[in-house]
Amino acid sequence: MDNELQDPLVYRRILLTVDADDHESTVRAFRLACTLAHDYDAHLGIASVMESEDINIFDSLTPSKISQKREELKTIINQYVEQAENNGVKDVTPLAYDGGDVDDVILKHVIPDFKPDLLVTGADTQFPHSKITGAIGPRLAKRAPVSVIVVR
Amino acid sequence: MDNELQDPLVYRRILLTVDADDHESTVRAFRLACTLAHDYDAHLGIASVMESEDINIFDSLTPSKISQKREELKTIINQYVEQAENNGVKDVTPLAYDGGDVDDVILKHVIPDFKPDLLVTGADTQFPHSKITGAIGPRLAKRAPVSVIVVR
Repeated sequence: MDNELQDPLVYRRILLTVDADDHESTVRAFRLACTLAHDYDAHLGIASVMESEDINIFDSLTPSKISQKREELKTIINQYVEQAENNGVKDVTPLAYDGGDVDDVILKHVIPDFKPDLLVTGADTQFPHSKITGAIGPRLAKRAPVSVIVVR
Repeated sequence: MDNELQDPLVYRRILLTVDADDHESTVRAFRLACTLAHDYDAHLGIASVMESEDINIFDSLTPSKISQKREELKTIINQYVEQAENNGVKDVTPLAYDGGDVDDVILKHVIPDFKPDLLVTGADTQFPHSKITGAIGPRLAKRAPVSVIVVR
């Protein structure tokens, strides 16, 4: 067998995607991401995306409403960041994004910005207004250029 | 936040699927599965499936040919098992299956038999005669009842 097969494989930059509207499906993914980041001393990024369709047409004409939605998203992400730090993860980065389709934002912006080697996502994480129906985890598992774990 | 978010999440039974015909796509998945199984003292199952279409119609009429193919598959799996043991994994189980479509065999037989809590698969692992084209990893990520990591 190859010598290469002897080498451990350890992830150094772990990106967790959270659905700010669906705490339930995020819990196990959060716990796994924290466990790995803590045990392997990895960087942890916690990302969520504000979908443009979350803002209705009336609110979209009111800059203060958009700004308020953005602040709400940041607050939720920061709660996860604080909990991760309480769990002993040393290096945690909050990542709040908005606009566009969630899959595309993660693939075209979040991944190139944070440069993870592992993406952690809940199995049931759905974004109700995504143009593609169903959970995003398996879709990211297919399309992302890095390792993806779908947590159940 | 929930108290539950403080709990580590650790996998105890890790199932690695290997493509006996495609060593390359299996190497990183093997390394990750060994790393996790070693570091968390988890059980490791190493599974491969002999596709019925791998046997041509002439060979299928010759029991000794089928038997030979089955032995070849077992030899390959046992090489991975031995390497995993050399890597310090204490509890490794070889799992050789045959017949049917690979996805279905894994979902209906290998998972119910081994009862993994994590399935580890290479991103490019393809089974050329599978009725569905493309890599099996993302499809298992969608359909499996347990966590799935697609390794790149």
